[in-house]
Order: sequence, then structure tokens, then C-alpha cells
Amino acid sequence: MAAHYHRTESLQHQVACNGKRLSEAVSKSTIQHHLHTDWLTRLINRAFSDPEFRVQALRFVDVLPSLNNDHELAEHLQEYFCVTDLPPLAKWGLSYTDKSWSTRVSATTVRYTLRGLARKFMGGSKLHHALTSISRLRHRDMNFTLDLLGEATISEAESEQYQQYYLQMMQSLSEPVNNWQQDTLLDTSHGVTAPRLNLSIKLSSLYSQLTPCAPEHGIEQICVKLRPILRQAMMTNTFITIDMEQYDFKHIVLGCFRQIIMEDEFISWPHIGIAMQAYLKDTYDDIKQLLDMLKERDTPVTIRLVRGAYWDYETVIAKQNNWASPVWENKNDTDYNYEHCLYLLLTSTTHIHTAIASHNPRSIAYAMALTEELNLNRDQFEFQMLYGMADTLKYALTHLSYRVRVYVPYGETLPGMAYLVRRLLENSSGQSLLESGFTNNSFTPDEHTFNAPEPSDSFLQFAAVNNTDFKNQPLLRFTDEKERNACREAIRAVRENLAEHYPLFINGEEITSQQNIHSYNPSNPKELIGTVSSATQAHADLALQSASDSFKQWQLTPVKIRADYLRRVATLLTQKRMEFSAWQILETGKNWTEADADVCEAIDFLNYYAQQAERLAEGKTVSVSGELNQTGYKPRGVCLVITPWNFPLAILCGMLCAAIVTGNTCILKPSSLTPVIAARFVQLWRDTGLPDGIINFLPGSGSLIGNYLAQQAGIHIISFTGSLKVGTQLLNIAAQIQPDQRHIKKVIAEMGGKNALIIDNDADLDDAITATLFSAFSFQGQKCSAASRVIVVEQVYNQFVDRLLQATKSLTSGDPAQPWNFIGPVIDSQAFDRISHIISQAMEQNSESGYDIRENSRDKNLIKPCIFFDVDPLSSLAQDEIFGPVLTVIKARSFFHAIEIANNTRYALTGGVYSRQPSHLQYAREHFHVGNLYLNRKITGALVERQPFGGFGMSGAGSKAGGADYLLQFVDSYCITENTLRRGFAPDVD
Amino acid sequence: MAAHYHRTESLQHQVACNGKRLSEAVSKSTIQHHLHTDWLTRLINRAFSDPEFRVQALRFVDVLPSLNNDHELAEHLQEYFCVTDLPPLAKWGLSYTDKSWSTRVSATTVRYTLRGLARKFMGGSKLHHALTSISRLRHRDMNFTLDLLGEATISEAESEQYQQYYLQMMQSLSEPVNNWQQDTLLDTSHGVTAPRLNLSIKLSSLYSQLTPCAPEHGIEQICVKLRPILRQAMMTNTFITIDMEQYDFKHIVLGCFRQIIMEDEFISWPHIGIAMQAYLKDTYDDIKQLLDMLKERDTPVTIRLVRGAYWDYETVIAKQNNWASPVWENKNDTDYNYEHCLYLLLTSTTHIHTAIASHNPRSIAYAMALTEELNLNRDQFEFQMLYGMADTLKYALTHLSYRVRVYVPYGETLPGMAYLVRRLLENSSGQSLLESGFTNNSFTPDEHTFNAPEPSDSFLQFAAVNNTDFKNQPLLRFTDEKERNACREAIRAVRENLAEHYPLFINGEEITSQQNIHSYNPSNPKELIGTVSSATQAHADLALQSASDSFKQWQLTPVKIRADYLRRVATLLTQKRMEFSAWQILETGKNWTEADADVCEAIDFLNYYAQQAERLAEGKTVSVSGELNQTGYKPRGVCLVITPWNFPLAILCGMLCAAIVTGNTCILKPSSLTPVIAARFVQLWRDTGLPDGIINFLPGSGSLIGNYLAQQAGIHIISFTGSLKVGTQLLNIAAQIQPDQRHIKKVIAEMGGKNALIIDNDADLDDAITATLFSAFSFQGQKCSAASRVIVVEQVYNQFVDRLLQATKSLTSGDPAQPWNFIGPVIDSQAFDRISHIISQAMEQNSESGYDIRENSRDKNLIKPCIFFDVDPLSSLAQDEIFGPVLTVIKARSFFHAIEIANNTRYALTGGVYSRQPSHLQYAREHFHVGNLYLNRKITGALVERQPFGGFGMSGAGSKAGGADYLLQFVDSYCITENTLRRGFAPDVD
Repeated sequence: MAAHYHRTESLQHQVACNGKRLSEAVSKSTIQHHLHTDWLTRLINRAFSDPEFRVQALRFVDVLPSLNNDHELAEHLQEYFCVTDLPPLAKWGLSYTDKSWSTRVSATTVRYTLRGLARKFMGGSKLHHALTSISRLRHRDMNFTLDLLGEATISEAESEQYQQYYLQMMQSLSEPVNNWQQDTLLDTSHGVTAPRLNLSIKLSSLYSQLTPCAPEHGIEQICVKLRPILRQAMMTNTFITIDMEQYDFKHIVLGCFRQIIMEDEFISWPHIGIAMQAYLKDTYDDIKQLLDMLKERDTPVTIRLVRGAYWDYETVIAKQNNWASPVWENKNDTDYNYEHCLYLLLTSTTHIHTAIASHNPRSIAYAMALTEELNLNRDQFEFQMLYGMADTLKYALTHLSYRVRVYVPYGETLPGMAYLVRRLLENSSGQSLLESGFTNNSFTPDEHTFNAPEPSDSFLQFAAVNNTDFKNQPLLRFTDEKERNACREAIRAVRENLAEHYPLFINGEEITSQQNIHSYNPSNPKELIGTVSSATQAHADLALQSASDSFKQWQLTPVKIRADYLRRVATLLTQKRMEFSAWQILETGKNWTEADADVCEAIDFLNYYAQQAERLAEGKTVSVSGELNQTGYKPRGVCLVITPWNFPLAILCGMLCAAIVTGNTCILKPSSLTPVIAARFVQLWRDTGLPDGIINFLPGSGSLIGNYLAQQAGIHIISFTGSLKVGTQLLNIAAQIQPDQRHIKKVIAEMGGKNALIIDNDADLDDAITATLFSAFSFQGQKCSAASRVIVVEQVYNQFVDRLLQATKSLTSGDPAQPWNFIGPVIDSQAFDRISHIISQAMEQNSESGYDIRENSRDKNLIKPCIFFDVDPLSSLAQDEIFGPVLTVIKARSFFHAIEIANNTRYALTGGVYSRQPSHLQYAREHFHVGNLYLNRKITGALVERQPFGGFGMSGAGSKAGGADYLLQFVDSYCITENTLRRGFAPDVD
Repeated sequence: MAAHYHRTESLQHQVACNGKRLSEAVSKSTIQHHLHTDWLTRLINRAFSDPEFRVQALRFVDVLPSLNNDHELAEHLQEYFCVTDLPPLAKWGLSYTDKSWSTRVSATTVRYTLRGLARKFMGGSKLHHALTSISRLRHRDMNFTLDLLGEATISEAESEQYQQYYLQMMQSLSEPVNNWQQDTLLDTSHGVTAPRLNLSIKLSSLYSQLTPCAPEHGIEQICVKLRPILRQAMMTNTFITIDMEQYDFKHIVLGCFRQIIMEDEFISWPHIGIAMQAYLKDTYDDIKQLLDMLKERDTPVTIRLVRGAYWDYETVIAKQNNWASPVWENKNDTDYNYEHCLYLLLTSTTHIHTAIASHNPRSIAYAMALTEELNLNRDQFEFQMLYGMADTLKYALTHLSYRVRVYVPYGETLPGMAYLVRRLLENSSGQSLLESGFTNNSFTPDEHTFNAPEPSDSFLQFAAVNNTDFKNQPLLRFTDEKERNACREAIRAVRENLAEHYPLFINGEEITSQQNIHSYNPSNPKELIGTVSSATQAHADLALQSASDSFKQWQLTPVKIRADYLRRVATLLTQKRMEFSAWQILETGKNWTEADADVCEAIDFLNYYAQQAERLAEGKTVSVSGELNQTGYKPRGVCLVITPWNFPLAILCGMLCAAIVTGNTCILKPSSLTPVIAARFVQLWRDTGLPDGIINFLPGSGSLIGNYLAQQAGIHIISFTGSLKVGTQLLNIAAQIQPDQRHIKKVIAEMGGKNALIIDNDADLDDAITATLFSAFSFQGQKCSAASRVIVVEQVYNQFVDRLLQATKSLTSGDPAQPWNFIGPVIDSQAFDRISHIISQAMEQNSESGYDIRENSRDKNLIKPCIFFDVDPLSSLAQDEIFGPVLTVIKARSFFHAIEIANNTRYALTGGVYSRQPSHLQYAREHFHVGNLYLNRKITGALVERQPFGGFGMSGAGSKAGGADYLLQFVDSYCITENTLRRGFAPDVD
């Protein structure tokens, strides 16, 4: 990316001249400012200068439309602003009198204020308001493009509705708009008459099940709904611009555009365009590739070059996931890239028409200068700006006879609030226009305003990753084609290695037993994944002997060496991550992202526990004069590790490596449903040269081998993850002291959950429903952390369940080897029968669910997600763990009642709350009794270190996996006290 | 202490003049230096300038005489010096050639070097050598005083032997010494002929069972042995000086002197003196008080004013115990105090003859000037200096016709090594003579040498104690009469409140049940300490209900408030510490120091857990962009606290307050043997206003109430300290999940021990035996930490057991209300019978022990300490916990064999090693598997925070009491994850 674009000195001189012209035109502008607009500007500029107030104010604006009555509004107002100083609030046009100010602020005042804000940036809530707004723009010599604001599309019912909206807009507006009086400048583009009606549409609104893993599938689904829209656009003489959205879907949006414009039907149609975001590192190359393709299309398309509106979001998401940021971190780099791309666009007029969408005076002046230098006519490009933003700049450009198009969003206030917050943010952010010397109503250029942007170093090379601290292994984003191909290829390769046999591995030797465990693909039970030897009690004795013998040396092995074995396994696993994902997809029925997450978590456990073990080994020293006290930890001995099938790699790996790195030796009994992944993982340890006997691999029957070993006096730790029944049984066995036992056995048991997600009155339902779906149904609900109860406060109950049901019905299901399937099979036919039986029984009491159990397929162990509404919170359905794609919805009288219901189970593993009321979130923090509580997000997917995982109640006995205390369970603590006073003499203590 | 002594300008002028005279005389001295002395001086001055080398060298010198052969010597040499640079070692007169230097150093060379060192500072190893040394001094115009070096007196056999030695010395030496030619200066004191034979004796050598608590008893016992010595001194014309020893015995030594010189027999005898230490803050007042008394004695006594030889020791011990330092911390303050005291002495010649014992040129010059100003004759005072130290100064003083007496230690090299190390230390310490411009062979005074010492601020006022961190509550030192009187008074006062009744206390109400527990004084089973209501199961239900109800509020009470209740109890307990000690003395039979230690530990638990709970509550926050993760801890619920009788306050308090401060509520079932202390302790909590129901006091039968409650579903934690049998039973009960149980019960069980102390070949037997006695027999061995096995490496086995047996026989026993009794009763007649039975049975196999079981008294539950020798390490006697004053001694082939034997039990609580071989200590650190390992000290008496206490194996399930992890057992951990990304906007993370 080191190439410089065209920026000669003479051009820069032209930029400066044009900047001056622009400034002069701005100063001549004679816009009538409404009084309330002035007041709003003051509000934004002043009040938002306090960062804390800004956070609270934006959040309050965000939640406001969800508030159902004046009482709720007063409560939220009080809670959002009691933490900040009052003075900035008082400036919200409210007369501040005494302490009980919040009671004096009428809901009406607040709503009026917000409506004023909304009116400033939105063209109205209804289509006829929008028509008025765009007519007014026409009157001021500006074109428009209309953007329909709305809720997120989370079901196919909703995506169909969006399609209808777009069709309707064209139908309703084409006539009035086409009746406007002709205006040569406005109506001519590239020498011909251009459509007046211009819509901007978001492709994500046309399909609810987009996933980065499956762009082909997403493109196919979108195109099905997009084609009728384009056909109608052709009929109604409407211009369509495809808006660009978040980075996760960029490859889908761009792919969709590339496909549809080349379809026979549309290949000659010129009135289509796409937005490209200059803040993306990819964009220049994306334009170049598009340009290559367009050489095969006779008719040009339009590219709207924008800076990009999701900078904060993209940056935060990338940081959260340890992904390389897709956007330029530096404002200057974005500015530079903007000009770089613009040069490419404006020198490609044969294939591309350009819309210069920017509020940045330098970018605009550069565009003016460049078009002059390139001798472009005024109808060979246009400027675009947002409604309500930089109005004086728009008028200056029209004054200088440039074509200007205004992006006019319209829609209901509630779904529009997200847009409003984004605009407010932009107006109040240090990163934005303010830095360009430009605020809404005044424009004071300084000596630097029109300088050429200089790219930062990071523009030219990516920063080295800092590796000193523990970092979570980044998940695959699947936006990159290479990643998707690698995954597909890994599945293919694994399929060539199916049906192998895996022996036991005891004391460094492979042992083939007489009995075998057969592991099948749950999605296709005829596909044999592999066979694994099944251990007898004699093998168990052998394994115990091996682990006991090897403990003698292993306990004394320095922690650095032990930790390095883990790091070596982590390296191997990272190299083979695709392969291990593929095995999981085939052996457990996880979809691509779930399988990848499991592998990454395993890598995290290895790296994290390696680091934690080294910290633990440092111990602690308390020195007093003449006395040296050192506390530290010693391994316990032999650890029996009994692992589950649902995270066949991550949980197994975490349990196993925690025991090993602390100096214990292990007998590993994996689940009989996923023994192949376990065997292949053990092979990685063997590849590192781990000494014999540290890991003894002992697949076999839990009731035979597991219980038998748990009883033995030679076992020191039993580390178990699985069902409540088996867990409590092991606790019980361990508490029976054997005659020759020389220690108390330690049992670490992670068991079930009956996890609740609470939906409060003021919850953001778009987010809440998406999170509910994911929490309840990802990996078919076969996670101990899965949501199996949604408790909804009654005021939003109907609204919530209607959308939830639609959204659930839209979930894709089938073979998870196909990346577009969100839902895969349950683990085996036994699970299929058990869950089907629970559903049938429950349907007798909840007949209205509309669920058709006959649609489930026993051949493929496929159970469609199933929801029961209005469930009695004390019924078995709401109390017992199902471990399948079954969700119960419970109605609560109030938020507090919801918490009470949530707490009323034996389990206490995970829980979640969707609420925007600070006091409710605080109440949940204090009263929602679960090991892992999630506020305003999904309740599964805990990350190592960031979200130490584990519950209490009957959910577990032990401290959190992936947390700082976890390793303490595998060690005994000791204290060594040395008297260093000798003959009245003690070494100095510092 | 603000009073200045006489230090006029003219006097200071005189000091300077005398300093000059002294310097001149020194420079004229013509002492013949032996070549090896020069070499040694170089060695000391140069090699010791490296602090690490100094530590290793002193330790090596210390251990050397214990090394039995050349092989051991080579090993030690290698191990002590491999950690330091070689060059300083090479200067030890050894020719350094290659890496394997240690093999090239012959044992002979090393021994020769050490013998040279010893010869420098000691007058010989046998009496006839000493005679030669003192004759030589006489020849050089100096008097002498002889000091017999020896091992510490740890048995009455040894104290009798010391008495015999002293008598023998006088017998053997009086004749040859009295035959010396007359010398007026040397033989005249205060105008009359003075004895030539002069002995310095240590009173601690005359009684093995000294304790600061019981000075009267100690004085009585010493005087019995001292009188014959003084009588013989009178007969043989010998002068006796009582040496001053460590501060713990100062009041005894001084008390003894004050008593015996006033006895009719000795009141007119002038030839007795005592040493006083100028470094003690008490000394000036002590001299004044002595002076007052001496006004009633016609004949003066001698006071030898020394600086004091245990400065490091006294400082370290005071710091270790959080005691105010008894010594001046500043060298200048000691110098100032020396002159202050000297002025008092030299102005009191009617009653006191003064010996000015100092090597400090300023002090000497000051004494010269002051005696001149006071017009004292040369025979009215004398100078004293140590053999081998500051020789040129001695000769200068004799040259100037002053009387000089040399303090001549003699004795076997081995016991003398302590003395040698002290001298080496003094010669190499920054605090000592070197700072006065004076080293052994050269004296280079500078402009400051003779300046008057200026006292530091701390001389005038004591520094304020810094209270921000946790500090262990200081034990009573009992050197102060006020402390002893307070303890006696508390016992008296408690006796006036015996036989009261204590009801149950449930949910804030006192409940008197129909059945009572009677608590008696174990030392006098007719003395009823009190009666306590005994709970029924109905009471248990009530208590559980109360604890469950009160948990709702208590769990939400802020940690600061909860912690402050603990601090308030700590304050009350500190105020009433004497009272609570007295209750323990009477209810459990602890002696004074044991009872005091128990109360202090209780205070420590309160303060430490209060602080730790506050730290725990801070939780941990991991912020990433758009995501806030908070991990923290929540209380579990109701805690059943079942406490033992052996630390009826400390352990009860620790278990109880840990549960409370973390937000749990408690049912407290104290031991039925010590319910009165428990009841009185609960009263303290009531006095703080703790809300009802947090502590429910429920004395009663363990098998009924304890087991019943342990089964209940409403119990969350069972915190137990007691026997292995009951502990494992509770673990078992807790693992049975009750039908309505909603959590896994947590059991914290601290159980027994069969703790071993290992005595290595090169152990310091003086220390090892003292520590063994204390570890095995303090509180009658009724501590889970008590030593019940001593494993002795065979080379020192005989030597060790001979002295151990003698020492054990010398232990005082009886009613612990009398402070001189080390051994008290076992807890009750049941214990008496059980232990007696074990002893009788064991005696059948170990007939040679010489133990007479008939001497034990069932009336007083008194069992004399009992030792079995050469015990089979696998026998029941060496494997099962006895919990009484019974010790088994086991012979090991080697140190490694000893470790193997030590580890071969079911328990792993405490253990100890006495060794001076670094590699052995390291081996023990790695291979001696116990919770608390003690190196070169006693194995009981763990302090809160400094020695977190608890074991593994069958000794316990849980983490260490008084340690950083302890509170974790009382809480569940949670993690709250908040999504703070909203509409693409997240607050900044720092």
C-alpha cells in the first residue's frame, strides 16, 4: 500500500485555491437557522464535552423510544444522570432548581427535545414526510437519495417485509418526483438524463441468516429478493445504491453487487451503484478488482465513495476478537486513502461514475481541484452529504454550481434512534468533523485545513503484535476466502482419514483392547468417524500404576519445562486448527464457527494455564528479620480426567493440561461419543515428546472404568465435566475413604445448567432476540451454558415472542459441514429420542406452539429449534436440563419477579439480562445468582481469562475454568519457614 | 530519658586530651604479631567485606565443629561457598587452582584455619591452657576474668555439671594464681588487696527451665546452685561476676543478684559483681534501682558496664515478635547511654565499684577524663576488654598505668563456636569497632573519634507504630512485672466468676435447654468452670432457620461493615486478653504463654481476615474494548462451624470470623470440653451489636447435633477442625446429596497429624533439643502441629537421645496456673486414660525407656512427657496420632532415609528439619511432604499471615488458615460480563 496517488504541487495549489473558494461560498451562505436548531447545536457542542455525560446522554437517547410511559422515563432519566454532574444536564434546556430535579423534568419536555434532535437528522417518520423533505431539497437545488431506517432483520418474515417496503417506496414516490419541474444541472448525469428517484438500500435487510462463512449462500438468498426490486427500479426509473454495511458482510454485499450487475437482465442497466468505505484497508483493492470486472460490462456503475460510518464499531469488534483492524486506525490514513481511491475512481470514468460522499473540506477541495485537472464536466461526478449535516457546505457547493445529493434517512423514531446516536456521536467525537475546522453552523478553516493528509507509519506497515501477555487465540472471521477454502479443504481431507482405529495409550505404549467404541457422524450415522479401543478394569489398573509411577519424576520437573510442553501443543494445535475443526464438524455436528471456537478455546487453555502455572510457582515470600517464609504449591498426584462430548477438545484440553502443568499425572477417559478427537489430541502431546505415563489415554465405559478408578486409593483428583447425576455420584464415591488411602480426594465437578435470559421492558429487542437465538440454539443447545429459559417482563412479552418465533423459524438447519447451516444434528439417536420425547410430552400441555415434531429427522438426528411459551417456571420443562434445542419462555410481572424466577432452580451456571435501566442491571449484579452473568449480550462463549467460567448451586463444585483460581484445585499449598537467625546473626531483609 | 549527663566543655576538652594520650600510647605499642594473626586479620577484614560471603563464612564456621569426618567437611565447604564468588574464598589461605577447588582443600587445612581463629579469641580449650593464657596476661601487666564456654543448659543434669565445673575451676586455679608474685597496681582495688582469681559466670547455666513468666521460681532455683559457688569463692578468695545475658532473662539475672547479695551470708562480701548492658533502654534505671538497694548494704559491689553483645539477636527477636526493641537501635544512642550510665556509676563509688568494659576509644577517653575530674585513684576503677580484641588499646592503657582486666573465655571448640562467631561478627560488622576508627592492629583516630555521642531522636521518644499493614498481635514477653501481675490477677478474677450458666444463643435470643454440658478445670476436675446448655435437634432446626433467614440480609451487607465487626471484636479481645487467657488456663490447662498465644492468634485472625475480605471484595476487572468483565466472590450461605478444644479461642475464632466476614451466617458448635470460652467469646460479638442470627451458638453433642446439621440441605459449608475420624465422616455426609439440596456442600476439614522432626548429622543439638521439647510437649502435645516423631540420623543418635532424655526429665509440670509449670494436665480423664493406655501398651515393647507410669496423676490428669526410643517407623506408635505428651524417636540411616520415614504416614501436616547442610535443607524443601515445613526451628506456633497453616494427605481438605487463599473456601466466584458497546459506541478503556 506504499503507492502514492497523484498529488503534485500544482494540484495542491489548486486544492488550496478551491478551498478558498469554498470557504468564501460558505461564508456567503444565508441559511435560516431555526431557533431550536441553534439550541441543539449548543447542546451538542457544550454538554458533550464531558465524556461521562456524553456516554450517559447517548445511552439515554438510545433507550428513550423504548420507554413505555412517563414513570419509566423519569426513572431512566434519574438513573442515567445521577452519576454525572448536574450542570451539563441543566443545559439540556431544563431549568435546574433543586435536588429532586428529575421529578421536575416532564416527560413531554424530554420527548420534545429528542424529537427535535431526530427532526434535525432524519427526513421524517413517514413516507409523506420524506416526500416533503426531498421536495424542499429540490427547491434548494439539491438531489436526494432516500434511506429507509428500520429494525434489524432477524427473520425471513421481516426480510420479506423489507422487500415490500422498497417496492412500495418506488411505487408511491416515482410519480410525484417525476412530476417535478426539469432542472438541467440536477437531472443530467454524464450527458444524459438521470433518474430523479434514488434509493439507498441495505442488503442485510433482505436476508436474516447471513453468516460470513457462507457468502455464496447469502448472495443467493439476497439476490432472490433483490431482483424484483431492481426490476421495479428499471420500470419506475429509479436509481438504486447498495449501501455498504459492517465489515463482516462486506464480502457478501460486494459479492452480491458483482454478481447481479453482470446478470443478463441488469448488465446494461446504468442506474445502479454501490457505496465503498475509504476507512477500510481493503477498499482500494476492492475498487481495482471491481474495475477489472467492469471492463466486461459496457455500462458503467456508480461508486459512492464514503469514509465509513462504523469506525468505532469495527475497531471495538476487532480489538475484542484480537483481529487485525479492518479500518485505518488513524484519521489521516483514512483521509489519505479517501483521496487515493478518489483518484482511481475519477480516472476511470469510462466504467465508473463517482459520488464524492464526504463532509471533509479538504476532501471536497481536493475533488474540486482534481476534477478540474482531469477536465471533468460538472455532470461527470456529484457530491453527496448527509441530511442535517454540514448544511452550509452543501449550499456553498450548490452556489458554486456543483451537483449535490443529500442522503435522507426516514423511518420510525424507534428504529431510527441507532442512526440518530451515530450522527450525534459523529458531531461530538474528537475524531470527526470538528477536527476539520467544521461544525454544523460555522466553518473556520485554518492554515492546515486544506493540507494534504500524510499517512501514518501504520498505513505503510502493520504493527508487530505484542506477545508478552496472554492473548486469546483469534477466531476465524471467515470474511477471507482463504479461510473458507481452508475449512472446506480440511473437511475433505479429514474424510479421507475416517474409520481408522485408535488404540489405548498407557505408559507410552499403544494397547489394542478386544472391545471397540464406534464413533459416527451424528449428521450421517452411517459415516464411521473411527473406532477406539475400549479399556477394561485391568487396563485401568495399568493406567493408574503408570500415572503413579510417572508422578515421582513429573512432580519435580520444573514448571517452565511443564509449561513449555503445553505451549508446544498449543503451537501444533494452532498449525492444525483447521484439521481439528473439521474432525469436530464431523464427529460432533458443530457448525464451522462453533468448531473453530472450540479449537481456539483449547489453544487458549494451553497458553493461559502455562502462564498461570508459572505465576503460581513463583509462590510468595514473607520475610521478617531472621525468618524466611515461603508459600507455594505442590501437585497432588494422579488426576482422573473424565471429559464431555460437547466441547470434545476445549474442555478436555483445559481439564487435562491444567492437571499436567501443575505437576500431576493423568488418566484421561474421554466421552465415548467423541473418542476420535480425544485420541488425535493425545497424539499431539506424544508429538511433543512428553514423557511416558504423564497422559494415559483410557477410553471406555464411564460406569465401569470411571467409577472403578474413582474408587481407587491411588487417585488424588477427579476432574469431571458432565451431567449432574454422574457428578454427584463421583463426589459420593470420592468421599468414601479407602482403607489404604493417604489423602482426601479432590473432586472438581462441572455439571449442568438451566440458564435464564431475562428480557426487561426497555430491552433492545433486535439485540435481545439475536442473542436469545444464539444462546439457546447454537450447537443445538448442547452447551451447559446454553439459555434454556427466557424470562420476559410482561409489557414486552407479546412483542418479544412474536418476533422470536419468526426468527426461530428462519434459522437454517442441516448438515453442519455446509457452512450456511446454523442448526446441526443432536449428538446421537439416543439424544434425539430423549429430546423428542420431552418435546412430545411438553406439547401435550403447550399445544399452541405450532411446532411440528414430524419435521424432525431421526436419520440425521435433526431437531428443529423448539420453543414453549408461557411455561410454568416450576414445571419440569423449566427446571430440568434438556441439553437440546428446546427453549422455554416465561412471563414475569416485573424485572424483580423475573430475577426471582431465574434464581429458582437448583443450578446457577450462566444467566443474562437485556435491560437498559442502570438500576436493573445493578440489581441483577447483586441478586442474579449465577457463576457467569452476562449483561446485554449472549450468555455462551466465555473466553479464557476474560470470562472465567463455572457455576455454583448444583452446577459445579470447583472454581472457574480459564480463571486465576482454577489451577489452585490441582495443587496442595505448603509453607516453608526457615529460621535464618544463627548465633544472633541474620541476613538482611529488604 | 531526656536528662543529660555531665558533659561540660572542659570535660570534653579533657576527653580530647586523653584521646590524644591514648593514641600516642597505642602507636608506641610494640606487640609481636604472630604471622598467622596477621593473615587472619587480613582474612576477616577483606573477605568479610562481601555480605553474602560473610553470611556463608560465619555459618560455615558455626557448623564446622559438628562435622564428623573429612567427607562431610568437603561437602559443606562446597555447598556453602558454591553460591558465592570464589576469589574471597581463595583468600582463606587456600591456593585456588581449578573448578574442583573444594576437593583440593584438605580438611586439615580448614581445621587448622579455624583452630587459628579460635586461638585468637579464646584462652584455650582446657583449664590448663587457660592458666597459661592468664599467666601470660599477668606477665603483660593485666588482670583477667575467666569465662567457661559451654553448651546451653537444657537439663538439670547439665546445670548440676556446670555448678561442678565452677567449683572445680576455683579449686584448681586458686593455688597457682595466688602463688603469683605480688603486683600493687594489679592486686589493689579501692585501697585493699583484691582477689586475683576472677570468674564470670552465666546464671542460665545453673537452671535449665527458666521462663520469663516465672522469675521468682527461676531465681529460687538458681540461688540453690549459686550459693555453694559463692561460698567456695569466699573460701578460695575468688571474685565472681555475674554475666548479663539476653533480655528475656535480664529480670531474672538481676533479680537473682539483688537477692543473693542481700542474703546474710553474702551481705558483707565485697567480691561480687554484675554486668550491665548500656545498649538496653532499661539499664540506667536498673542501675539507679540497684543503687537505692545498695544503700542498705554496707559493702559495695562491682558493676561491669558493657555495651552488650546480643544487639543483633535482641533486634531480630523484637522485630519477629512485634515487640518494642529493648536495645537502642542507634549506635550513637548506645554510646550516649554508656557515658550516661558511667557517670552515674563513677559518682557512686561508695556503693559501686566500676569496671569500664569497652573497646570504644571515645568511651575509654571519656572514662579517663571523668575519673580525673572526679579525682578517682587508679585503683578505684578498672578497664576491661575481651581476649583477642583491641590488643594495642589494652597495652596503651597499661602503659598509661591503668588497671586492665581481660575477659578470657575458654572451653571446647565446639560449644565455643557460638562465641567465636559473635567475635567474628563484631570484627566484621559495620555497627562495631571499625566505625570507631579502630581495628585490631591499627588505630587511626580521626577528627570525630573523640567527639561526644549525640543521641538520636528515638533516644528521646519512642517511634510511633505504623499501623497500615496487618501486624501480628505481639505476645506478652512477661519480662515486665506488670504483665505477670496482670495475668495472676486475671486468673484470680476469673475464679470469682466460675460455675456460671451459659445458655444457647439463637437468632438473638438466649435459650436455656434442659440438658447441660459441665466444663471442669482439667488440672483440678473438682473445679467447675461453668455449665452450658446442650442443644437438641429442635434447637438445631431453629438455628438453621435463623442462619438461613439472616443470610438474606447479611450476604448483601457491604464488606467494610462486616470487616468492621471483626475489628471491633479484635479490639474488645485485645482489651480483655488477660481475661481470655485466664479462662483458657483454667478451662484447658494451657500454661501462661500458650494461653496468651492462643488469644493473640484469635486477634490476628480477626484483623487478618477483615483485611483479606476487603481485598477479596475488590475483585478483578478485565476490560477490553466494549466489554467489561468483573470477577468477584459471593458468600455461599449457612456455615456449620464445628470447633476443637485445643485452641478453643484461636481456631474457633478463625473458622467463625472467616465465614462471617465473607458474608455467610453461622451455626457454631464448640467443643463440649471448652464451651465456656466459646460462650464468652460469642458474648463479645453480641457486644459489638452484630445483627441477630449471624452467629447461632449451639453447644451440644457432636454425634447428635453435628451430624444432624451436616446432613441438612440448608447447610452450605461445613467448617471442621478435629479428628480424622469425625472429619472423614463429615466429608461423607456432605457428599450425600439431599433431595431438596440446591448446592454442593463445601467441607473444610482440618484434621490430625503425625508430625516428624528430623535431626541431621550436623544439627545444632542445643537448639534441636530445645525445639523438640517445645514441639512435642508444649500444651502436652495436644496440638495437631505437635511433633510426635523425631527422626535422628544415626551418627548423632546416641548423643541426641541422651541429652533429650535428660532435658525431658527436667521439664517442670503441674498446675499451669503456676507460671513455672511447662507441662500441664491433658484435657480430661478420658484423654488421661486413653494416653496412659497407649503408653502402657508401648512400654511392653519398649521396656528400656525408664518411664515410670505410676508417677502420672489421674487426679490432676497429669501425664509426664514420655519418650520411646528406637521405634519401628511403621508401628502404630509411629503411625497413629496420640494427641498427648508422647514422643517416638526413630533412627535413620541417613538424612534421605529420614525424609523417607517422615513421609511415610497418612498425614502431612507439619514437619521440621534441623540441619546445617544447605543441600539437605533444599532436599527437604522439595521432598518433605507436609503443609508446614520448618527449618531449624520448632514446628508449632504458626503465625497468621507469616505461616499460613494447614496440611494435606489425610491431615486436611482445604486451604491454609491464616493464608491468602483461606477465605476463597467460603465464597463462590462469579464473573459479570457487560457488553458496553452500544450503537457502535463504547466508553474508553484505560
